[in-house]
Amino acid sequence: MKKIEALTFDLFGTVLNLEDSLNPFIESFISDSQIDTTPSQFWKTYRHRQRIEQYQDNILMLGHSGYTQVAENAFVYTAKIYGCDPSKSQIEGMMIGWKNLNPFPEVLESLSHLSKKFKLVVLSNGEHNFLKHLVTERIKFDFDNIISVETVGEFKPSPLVYRKASEILGIPPDHLLMVSANSFDVLGAVSSGFWGAYIDRYSLPFESSPHQPHLICNNFIDLNNQLENI
Amino acid sequence: MKKIEALTFDLFGTVLNLEDSLNPFIESFISDSQIDTTPSQFWKTYRHRQRIEQYQDNILMLGHSGYTQVAENAFVYTAKIYGCDPSKSQIEGMMIGWKNLNPFPEVLESLSHLSKKFKLVVLSNGEHNFLKHLVTERIKFDFDNIISVETVGEFKPSPLVYRKASEILGIPPDHLLMVSANSFDVLGAVSSGFWGAYIDRYSLPFESSPHQPHLICNNFIDLNNQLENI
Repeated sequence: MKKIEALTFDLFGTVLNLEDSLNPFIESFISDSQIDTTPSQFWKTYRHRQRIEQYQDNILMLGHSGYTQVAENAFVYTAKIYGCDPSKSQIEGMMIGWKNLNPFPEVLESLSHLSKKFKLVVLSNGEHNFLKHLVTERIKFDFDNIISVETVGEFKPSPLVYRKASEILGIPPDHLLMVSANSFDVLGAVSSGFWGAYIDRYSLPFESSPHQPHLICNNFIDLNNQLENI
Repeated sequence: MKKIEALTFDLFGTVLNLEDSLNPFIESFISDSQIDTTPSQFWKTYRHRQRIEQYQDNILMLGHSGYTQVAENAFVYTAKIYGCDPSKSQIEGMMIGWKNLNPFPEVLESLSHLSKKFKLVVLSNGEHNFLKHLVTERIKFDFDNIISVETVGEFKPSPLVYRKASEILGIPPDHLLMVSANSFDVLGAVSSGFWGAYIDRYSLPFESSPHQPHLICNNFIDLNNQLENI
C-alpha cells in the first residue's frame, strides 16, 4: 500500500451526509402533501430510485443528464409512487436541500490528517459547478483536485470515470485509492485497477465479485488509522 | 399502428408471474432461516436488487454474466441484507423456483388471438437455454422466435438488445411493438425506434422521458382489445 499517491473521494453518502441533511426537506414535503409514509421510508425509496435513474442514464445511451436533473427526476418519480405529483415549488424546495448538504462530523479532521501524506481528490457523480459549490460552501476543505463525471458523460461505476480520473491526475490506477461508502463505486474503481476503501456507513453487504475492497472502514477516523498502519 | 408486423414480449414479470410463482420458495427460505421479514417484503427487496445487479453487469463492462447467475447473486445479497448467509442447498432451492415460473392467467388466450394478426417473439433478459425451457415447459406457446440478450451480451434496456432483435427478425424497429410490464424496457425499446406497450401490472409511474409508451394496458386482454381497435 506504500505506493498510494492520491485518495479519490466519493462525496454523496461518503463525505456528505445525505439522509440527515435532506431530512428537513423530506419531512416538510411529506407533511405538506399529506403522503402516507415516514421520512426514513421516503428517503430509502428516493435513494434507490436515484440509483436506478443514474444507471439507466448510462445504459440508455441518450446522453448524460447530470446529477441534479437525475436527482430531480428521481424525486418526482418517488413522490408519484406515493400518489403525489409534486408542484414546481415543492421540487425547487427539495433541490434547495441538495445545495445545503452537510459533511459527516468526522470527515474534516480526518481529511486534514490524510492531506499530510496523500493528494486528496474529489471524484464524484455531481456536475462540475455543483461540486465546486459543495466543496467551497459546505465541506470547506481545500482538495487538490475536483473531478466530475461530466468530463466523460457517464455516472459511476462506469470504467470511463476511473480511467479518465487517472489520466487527468497523471497517476496510474494502482497508485490511487478510491474511498466510497457506495459499494458499487469501490467495485467500479477496483475493477479499473484502483485500490479500494469501502466506508461501511450503512451496514450493507458488498457485491459478490472478485473485485473486493482492500480496506473496509467504519468511518474516516478508521480509514485514517488503517492508512497509518500500512 | 397498422404497420406493426411483430410483437416482442418481455417474459419476466410480463408473461411470467414472478412473485406468485416464487412465493412458496421464498416462504420456505424465510421460515427455514428464521429471517425477520415477510415474503412480500423479501420479494420486493430481491426484485430491486436483481435490477441493480443487471444494470451493474452492463455498466461495469466485465462481460455478461447471464440472467441465472445474476438472479442467484441478487438472492444471496438480499439474504445477507436480512442477516442470513444462504447455504448451497437454499440457493439451489431458490433457483429451482426460477425454473418453475407460471404465466399470468390471461396470457395464453390473448397470445392465441394476437398470433392471428402478428408474429409473436420473445425478447428477454434470460439466457437462450433458460428461455427455451420456460417457453416449452412453462408457457407452452409456440412463439415465432425466441431472442435472448445473450446474443449481444448486455441486459435490457441497452439499445444493443432492441437493435439486434430488429436485425435478427429482418423487420425495421418501427414495425415492431415491445410489450413489457417493466417501464424501463418500454423506454429502451421506444428510444430505439420501436412502438411500446406498457402493461401496468404493478401500478408504478412511468419514467420522466420524452420516450413514452404508445399504449398503456392493464393486462394482455386489454392489449388485445387496444390492438383490435387501432
